[in-house]
Amino acid sequence: MDSTEFRKRAQELVEYIIRYQETLETRRVTPNVQPGYLKSLIPSQAPEFPDNWENVMKDLDDKIMIGMTHWQHPRFHAYFPAGNSYPSMLADFLSAAIGCIGFSWASAPSCTELEIVVLDWLGQMMGLPEDFLFLSPNSRGGGVIQTSASECILVSILAARFHIIKRLREEYPGEEDEALLAKLIAYSSKEAHSCMEKGCMIAFVKVRGLEADDDFSLRGDTLLEAIQEDIKKGFVPFFVSCTVGTTSCASADNIKEIGPICEEYGIWLHVDSAYAGSAMICQEFRHLFEGIEYASSVNTNGNKWLLTNFDCACYWVKDRFKLNEALTVDPLYLKHSNDQKSIDYRHWGIPLSRRFRSLKLWFVIRMYGVEGLRKYIREHCRLAKVFEKLVRQDPRFEVVNKVMMGLVCFRLRGSNEINEMLLKVINASGRLHMVPSLLKAKYTIRFCVCRENATDDDMRYAWNVIRDFAEVLIILRQDVESFPDAPEDPVDSANTHEIKKEAADLYKSLTSYDAKGQAVRRHSLALSTSTVTDVIGRTNLDQLVKEHLDHRKFHRDTITPTTSINESLHLPVTRRHHDIVYDRRRDREFEAHPERRRFRKDPEDFLIEPLPPESLLQIKQMGIGVGIGIGVCVLFKMLRFFP
Amino acid sequence: MDSTEFRKRAQELVEYIIRYQETLETRRVTPNVQPGYLKSLIPSQAPEFPDNWENVMKDLDDKIMIGMTHWQHPRFHAYFPAGNSYPSMLADFLSAAIGCIGFSWASAPSCTELEIVVLDWLGQMMGLPEDFLFLSPNSRGGGVIQTSASECILVSILAARFHIIKRLREEYPGEEDEALLAKLIAYSSKEAHSCMEKGCMIAFVKVRGLEADDDFSLRGDTLLEAIQEDIKKGFVPFFVSCTVGTTSCASADNIKEIGPICEEYGIWLHVDSAYAGSAMICQEFRHLFEGIEYASSVNTNGNKWLLTNFDCACYWVKDRFKLNEALTVDPLYLKHSNDQKSIDYRHWGIPLSRRFRSLKLWFVIRMYGVEGLRKYIREHCRLAKVFEKLVRQDPRFEVVNKVMMGLVCFRLRGSNEINEMLLKVINASGRLHMVPSLLKAKYTIRFCVCRENATDDDMRYAWNVIRDFAEVLIILRQDVESFPDAPEDPVDSANTHEIKKEAADLYKSLTSYDAKGQAVRRHSLALSTSTVTDVIGRTNLDQLVKEHLDHRKFHRDTITPTTSINESLHLPVTRRHHDIVYDRRRDREFEAHPERRRFRKDPEDFLIEPLPPESLLQIKQMGIGVGIGIGVCVLFKMLRFFP
Repeated sequence: MDSTEFRKRAQELVEYIIRYQETLETRRVTPNVQPGYLKSLIPSQAPEFPDNWENVMKDLDDKIMIGMTHWQHPRFHAYFPAGNSYPSMLADFLSAAIGCIGFSWASAPSCTELEIVVLDWLGQMMGLPEDFLFLSPNSRGGGVIQTSASECILVSILAARFHIIKRLREEYPGEEDEALLAKLIAYSSKEAHSCMEKGCMIAFVKVRGLEADDDFSLRGDTLLEAIQEDIKKGFVPFFVSCTVGTTSCASADNIKEIGPICEEYGIWLHVDSAYAGSAMICQEFRHLFEGIEYASSVNTNGNKWLLTNFDCACYWVKDRFKLNEALTVDPLYLKHSNDQKSIDYRHWGIPLSRRFRSLKLWFVIRMYGVEGLRKYIREHCRLAKVFEKLVRQDPRFEVVNKVMMGLVCFRLRGSNEINEMLLKVINASGRLHMVPSLLKAKYTIRFCVCRENATDDDMRYAWNVIRDFAEVLIILRQDVESFPDAPEDPVDSANTHEIKKEAADLYKSLTSYDAKGQAVRRHSLALSTSTVTDVIGRTNLDQLVKEHLDHRKFHRDTITPTTSINESLHLPVTRRHHDIVYDRRRDREFEAHPERRRFRKDPEDFLIEPLPPESLLQIKQMGIGVGIGIGVCVLFKMLRFFP
Repeated sequence: MDSTEFRKRAQELVEYIIRYQETLETRRVTPNVQPGYLKSLIPSQAPEFPDNWENVMKDLDDKIMIGMTHWQHPRFHAYFPAGNSYPSMLADFLSAAIGCIGFSWASAPSCTELEIVVLDWLGQMMGLPEDFLFLSPNSRGGGVIQTSASECILVSILAARFHIIKRLREEYPGEEDEALLAKLIAYSSKEAHSCMEKGCMIAFVKVRGLEADDDFSLRGDTLLEAIQEDIKKGFVPFFVSCTVGTTSCASADNIKEIGPICEEYGIWLHVDSAYAGSAMICQEFRHLFEGIEYASSVNTNGNKWLLTNFDCACYWVKDRFKLNEALTVDPLYLKHSNDQKSIDYRHWGIPLSRRFRSLKLWFVIRMYGVEGLRKYIREHCRLAKVFEKLVRQDPRFEVVNKVMMGLVCFRLRGSNEINEMLLKVINASGRLHMVPSLLKAKYTIRFCVCRENATDDDMRYAWNVIRDFAEVLIILRQDVESFPDAPEDPVDSANTHEIKKEAADLYKSLTSYDAKGQAVRRHSLALSTSTVTDVIGRTNLDQLVKEHLDHRKFHRDTITPTTSINESLHLPVTRRHHDIVYDRRRDREFEAHPERRRFRKDPEDFLIEPLPPESLLQIKQMGIGVGIGIGVCVLFKMLRFFP
């Protein structure tokens, strides 16, 4: 590909990206594919000769995009936001074009230096104590961008392990390092992310998960008790990881209580705020970071809640020399790393090579300004409150977490099974995507505000989908506690005509529409004539779905592909190759033609779009041409060529 | 930034990227900046309010780009190539736009599935045994893209550690895990990459570096001896890492000999072919992979020698269940990962979150075809031979490694110091960039063919620069063994007029040119009138530079910033804010105006470049306009508006 083709393809790709972003809601949020679907669509061997761009892009659409969970979709409310914004994308594109690898200062000076500056920026934005920044002339602290939060936690454990072993060597001379290792013990709340457990596993150290309080927060007393207990047993507590913004429910451990304890016992305190750390740029959340001055290291993911693309796991330490010492393999280098002037980021993490990652964060901060980013975070928090209110208005539901940020954890007041079923059915529909968490043994559905420009309408849409699906389940099941009108035994009672009708109607709203809109009616008809109880009566719905799941051996944490659910319900799947469009203004769905993927609009809805700049240029050129033409004629006239 | 602005900025950025790539050689390859240079150029606090794109891009040029080591520069011959190509950049841009995070199958099915397919493609291209691929129905193998080669080696060590500890628990019931850990020992050649040592440090296991043979290859006998020795001492050998294509000199360990030994002793054999693995797509290099069937894991970096942007560290294992078992924290998930159908890549590495990395590799393979990639690799190998020949023709130099691929290790036949000095002076000039390696205690200069479209001319240019600088050093120093014409004592002899003149001329070629070309003459004059010996005579050049280095406390492995060298030589630095252009056809440099950054060409040199498509469109529109104008006039005439 030469530069001429690159220019052409890049322009096409930019249009593709804009179209993708702007028509995302015309797609299913989760795909309707089975594990292994791609194997049959793509040749099993690489092509011997070059292909052309059009074919690759066609395959992208026909083969890759159909199997995508769209993280930037307005109906995506799973996990946490995956940072994404136009300035970030462009900066990342630029980073790829520059193609530098910045493992040492010299290998790419500006790559290292921009990272230094931008991490200082973000640290200040979040109100981190100056100790964590490069800023002050005698600072021993500083920040770095790692690949992931997992890596941030792992390197913290490794640094803590290195220094405790060093200390213990003096206390227990003659002991083997491995014997000292056996004494070590680390702590975190049971609500901490699994990467804490993984980090300890990699570092070969013991870890103890501690009970959080009723607000899912780890408290000082709990930690202190565990430490004292373990010291009595001969263990050496060396590491504590606190979470501010847990994955399960965005709760926060009490750093203010935990910090002084860690200081007293000489324990390395790490604060994992992968998601919530970004919110610290807003003053109103800073109380969650009270006690942060006791921490030895902190991390937040710019690639979560700060509109920056993965990977951008920002990590600060109070003593970078301690960190480097633990991660440097060559003592020759080590001797020099006391130099304040030169930073070699390869001594800050696992990988040697590094991309120019600070570029995207720099672009984002410059293009949004801190105020713009605050606005974005506050809007997400406000929307979470809007959603929370909708849930709380329905007595059949309960909100399980204290909604502080963009995450609402809710559930039907009923068994874990019905909640699990509800989530599976919703995810299978492809109309909304959420994931579960287990809070104090209760199966809970996590709803996270993810999309950059999420709106109140998005909250209402999501709630309507959830409520609709819940109603079907409530009608078919009896294990919802506080739904006073729930029929006693709808499945077996052949006479409950009303319920049958209601269920059938709700089923209609769940069925799929085919490309020509015909099958819609056929399915709906089929469903309303065959009584729903006929379908359900044959066997218990729950059982049926479970059988399907077992048969297909899906992971517990895998989203059930639509077919398995739909087949259970005898609903043919027709959504696979086309898209359903939800018209926000009319609050109903339209089918969309697969080729066009556009809203089907009424004529009066067409917007008058401004002409693109190229067209203006063409018109200008044509105008100049007309002028020249007339000029030529006038000249000819003057020269009397015209008789 | 809305989509309209995104379109505009993206188009500007594409032009910026093309200009960057095409005018790279008008820049210094390494920058002329000091550690900490950026701090004074960028505000110490983040901007409160949004800035505009133009300002950010202006800062990019004025502040970031001036501090960049340009890895894609035609004069960049350091490290290994940093994979980069237009299709890869575009695919990576697309990956950022899609913004999915693929830690489990469900979180982004096509992200996982494309990785499965593409890793199978590349594995086949490299001739890996089928055991390493997902392909066959009962395969236990498969591939994954990791962040870096360091991570590939680390996870191999962790997997090996997990399984040996599991075995030892049975052999030594009652022993603590840490006591078993103390028995473990890993091996690699002393030529292996430092990430092997780092991996073992993280995994808390002992590692022993073994001597390579005269071709820098680790042999079976050496390993066997070490294993037997260590077993006698009570250690348990559990891991061997072989390198094919070492960083120091692109040598290859003898897998054919080592493989059966590992099999016999139940040792996990990892083959690290981060650089050279890509060459295995060419049949003529496959002999280096003989015995690969004994390996448990292999890695190669697509982001090195396969035109794919960082990060793309491809890694295959023969038993993915063994790998997953060692990296999975939740036994509940583990139970399901025997399912052949669904792959959860989070159980394959350290980070949980993952970018859509296979997309760029897929685009590259499709757009180049395997044949295109083979051609690229073979061309690099051919060019390395061209460079090797140039070096060998000069009796003052020696080639130290067996040149098999794109890397030539050479040195002046003389002390380590003069070679170190030569490299420092060349790097400081910004005209060429290479890095050193220590081979059997000899300081050696590594020359790697890096640029995608490197040419014979690039090899000659590089050689001329090296030779010119070497000649200056040879004139000034006496420690080159086999330079018969080397003057006895040029520095102290005030009468060696010829040498002074020659040195002055050579110094001229090292000096910088200012934007108006005036300073060039001034500097040259200054240098030729002040005798070079005056400068050098004051103190020994070597000593002077060393003092500067010590004073600035640079790392041994850091490239010396130009100023420190230039200041030693009393040469003012003027290259900072403009660019020097090298005209290949004339074999000389021109200064380039900073704004235009173009070749200053003689009139006869101007190429007739085809008009870009937009211009054609504009001309067409103008033509239509002229036609309309004339038509209007003719009509007016017919209607007798003209008298």
